[in-house]
Amino acid sequence: MTDIKFFDDVEVDLVDHMGGDASVVHAARVSVVGRNHEEVLFNALKDTGLINYLMRKKHGSPFEHNALTFYIKAPIFVAREFMRHRIGWSYNEMSGRYTELPGEFYIPNPDRPLVNVGTSANPRFEAGDAYLVSETAWSLESSYGTAWEQYKYLLELGVGNEVARAVLPVGLMTQFYATCNARSLMSFLELRTNEPEATFPSNPQHEIELVARKMEAEFAGLFPVTYEKWNDNGRVAP
Amino acid sequence: MTDIKFFDDVEVDLVDHMGGDASVVHAARVSVVGRNHEEVLFNALKDTGLINYLMRKKHGSPFEHNALTFYIKAPIFVAREFMRHRIGWSYNEMSGRYTELPGEFYIPNPDRPLVNVGTSANPRFEAGDAYLVSETAWSLESSYGTAWEQYKYLLELGVGNEVARAVLPVGLMTQFYATCNARSLMSFLELRTNEPEATFPSNPQHEIELVARKMEAEFAGLFPVTYEKWNDNGRVAP
Amino acid sequence: MTDIKFFDDVEVDLVDHMGGDASVVHAARVSVVGRNHEEVLFNALKDTGLINYLMRKKHGSPFEHNALTFYIKAPIFVAREFMRHRIGWSYNEMSGRYTELPGEFYIPNPDRPLVNVGTSANPRFEAGDAYLVSETAWSLESSYGTAWEQYKYLLELGVGNEVARAVLPVGLMTQFYATCNARSLMSFLELRTNEPEATFPSNPQHEIELVARKMEAEFAGLFPVTYEKWNDNGRVAP
Amino acid sequence: MTDIKFFDDVEVDLVDHMGGDASVVHAARVSVVGRNHEEVLFNALKDTGLINYLMRKKHGSPFEHNALTFYIKAPIFVAREFMRHRIGWSYNEMSGRYTELPGEFYIPNPDRPLVNVGTSANPRFEAGDAYLVSETAWSLESSYGTAWEQYKYLLELGVGNEVARAVLPVGLMTQFYATCNARSLMSFLELRTNEPEATFPSNPQHEIELVARKMEAEFAGLFPVTYEKWNDNGRVAP
Repeated sequence: MTDIKFFDDVEVDLVDHMGGDASVVHAARVSVVGRNHEEVLFNALKDTGLINYLMRKKHGSPFEHNALTFYIKAPIFVAREFMRHRIGWSYNEMSGRYTELPGEFYIPNPDRPLVNVGTSANPRFEAGDAYLVSETAWSLESSYGTAWEQYKYLLELGVGNEVARAVLPVGLMTQFYATCNARSLMSFLELRTNEPEATFPSNPQHEIELVARKMEAEFAGLFPVTYEKWNDNGRVAP
Repeated sequence: MTDIKFFDDVEVDLVDHMGGDASVVHAARVSVVGRNHEEVLFNALKDTGLINYLMRKKHGSPFEHNALTFYIKAPIFVAREFMRHRIGWSYNEMSGRYTELPGEFYIPNPDRPLVNVGTSANPRFEAGDAYLVSETAWSLESSYGTAWEQYKYLLELGVGNEVARAVLPVGLMTQFYATCNARSLMSFLELRTNEPEATFPSNPQHEIELVARKMEAEFAGLFPVTYEKWNDNGRVAP
Repeated sequence: MTDIKFFDDVEVDLVDHMGGDASVVHAARVSVVGRNHEEVLFNALKDTGLINYLMRKKHGSPFEHNALTFYIKAPIFVAREFMRHRIGWSYNEMSGRYTELPGEFYIPNPDRPLVNVGTSANPRFEAGDAYLVSETAWSLESSYGTAWEQYKYLLELGVGNEVARAVLPVGLMTQFYATCNARSLMSFLELRTNEPEATFPSNPQHEIELVARKMEAEFAGLFPVTYEKWNDNGRVAP
Repeated sequence: MTDIKFFDDVEVDLVDHMGGDASVVHAARVSVVGRNHEEVLFNALKDTGLINYLMRKKHGSPFEHNALTFYIKAPIFVAREFMRHRIGWSYNEMSGRYTELPGEFYIPNPDRPLVNVGTSANPRFEAGDAYLVSETAWSLESSYGTAWEQYKYLLELGVGNEVARAVLPVGLMTQFYATCNARSLMSFLELRTNEPEATFPSNPQHEIELVARKMEAEFAGLFPVTYEKWNDNGRVAP
């Protein structure tokens, strides 16, 4: 089983981006002055207030004239939740039809709480004991190993990729490009990060929050004022 | 393993619907006469030509004032491809976080061609021999069985649903509601059915085409003139 | 000028619809039990709580498996704002290219407050005095009349519809079909009705609020529990 | 009437952009090799074929991981048609509620054919004679002048911007930001440019085609291979 690799984390790389706080302000200003060819720099003193106003009043469209492309590597079960975000999102994902998939699988880091002590509608996770943690890792490894063996066996038999992949688990690592804008990203982050102080607190699964937090860090760096005012307004997407 | 069931087909039920050929015509007519309160019936003689004109000129918007809700049961790998259709589609799917998933798995019918004799970019499938067919079924069953055992074991250990599901394969049957309109449905069918005579022939995977053909049959029944003219115009979505 | 008509109100007719509170519940339930073929009626006792939970947690997708088609007659300046709602909305509008437009113009009812005593960013309107009201009506009538004369003159000259319409004012009444679902409708109503108690109060223009309130009344009738819980949760679209 | 200006053309400026042919190829390649960190340059020899393949097979998603922001100045009747493009488009437009609009109006260039010698469903325009051209210009100017006078009068009376604007014609120049990606732009250009050789020839209004052609020129410069292969495949958006 030398061709199997295990991952206990996700990967998020910012591939490309366009725009920032200044693009938000310019798009908003077209409403009142048309194009202002001179003013291309962000003016912290007056533009911070404008961004706060847009956020508070849910004037969302000025936050759309920008773009962020991310490369993401995460388990299939995360990709499945992620791609339910349809509006203002574009995707290209590694295909199990066109290629033989790599044997890369997700096993949670020992710190990941494994036991749901809440309800299914309002899950709240706590760490299990050492036995539960090691048994979980063993069970995942063992199950992944069997699935991988059968996948390789089916391919060797001559079965097409698209049929053989049926045995692969949703814990398999997949890779995709995701392009969004600041507005669609805030909408994603509102639902996929857990902030008790947020206006509408969510219960995202730990693994999609791992992805979301890495995206949030890139967003905070590229749109510092937008990010600050989004937090000031309860992390509600405008 | 008495709680496992195998399926060799998908299920598609039309749950609800609104509109038909007449709604296409009424929406198109608002462009020229505003609302025509009297004319509520489809007039085959003159309205067939209008629908053909809309299709040929790619005036797509009149095909959106209607709705179809489907219940679909299919393997996860089909649902994954399906939900990449974002525009004019709404989804709700069985959740592996909120519930313990049923042990229902997909094993292709013996008639399903298993061997790709084309390229990966242009796959073309042919039946394998009897040995390959039976080995494939055995391999899938065996792999599914192990995954299911480990899933149940993890749940018994006390591991949360959302973690335990990582071992479940993409051949697991899932269930979802999908709501669309005639335009977004034609766009789906254009890409997910293989018609050599179509203007842009596609290479859909066999299993998503099984779903698409059942949806196509419902569509043909509810929108007979739209369906006919879509076919007459190379099955290109307007 | 016998062919001119003036309107001081908008028109909203529900043309067709699919689904209601029960469809919300069924779509939500597929997450936990798959399809429940038996339970087709709305159960007020238990389903009201579920709808409240979905609204509070911003689980928006179950509110999309339904459809409402409206016929709307309103001034062009209202249609312009309306059609900025892109997601989950379909439109067909009377065309000034394909037809000669009817001479129907909007003049506000004398009760419509005309004077902005707020700021431009936060407008607040108050009634003007009798002189201002009558001068406004006269000015609109007079300007509309000149535009209409020139439109007819250009058409008589032989100028194409699409060029002649350039003189027509945005106070001209237009007609369109709009199809949405409960979720996209709530998002529209959140922004286009003014409720001081709402979580994010808006400042919609009076005339688009006239349209929105008529749509709201239809929505309240078709989705009574959804409507109630949306109000209970600050009229924030899920 | 010294504060009125007339325009016989539209303005299109590329404000910002992200990506190009290389981004299309990288997004497509993630399907087969995951992220290829090394290969960042476009390889004309092999990548041109890939782009042609994507275009021909209507694999549209790789054309979405890029962005173009345009500033556009055009008559309201053009903006109205433009903003019917909902998917993959973001807009911010000069507001007649928040500001007093500038007195800028559209009068066609004398070369613009004015007379429809086709049908309303299939318009075909020819130049009128010199009298018709000068009468048209006079009629537009005169009607615009009256509308502008009444607009200024209403504002002086104290009537709010949002009410006074009702008299302004759809020939008024407006300004907006529009952000799209290569896929949504190709879909726009397919419908808004008239190419007799295209697979689905359209009948766009002259003025929106003026805008579209300026956008097409920017697109051709930024995505030369994508642009060429789109033309080679009948200008059908993938």
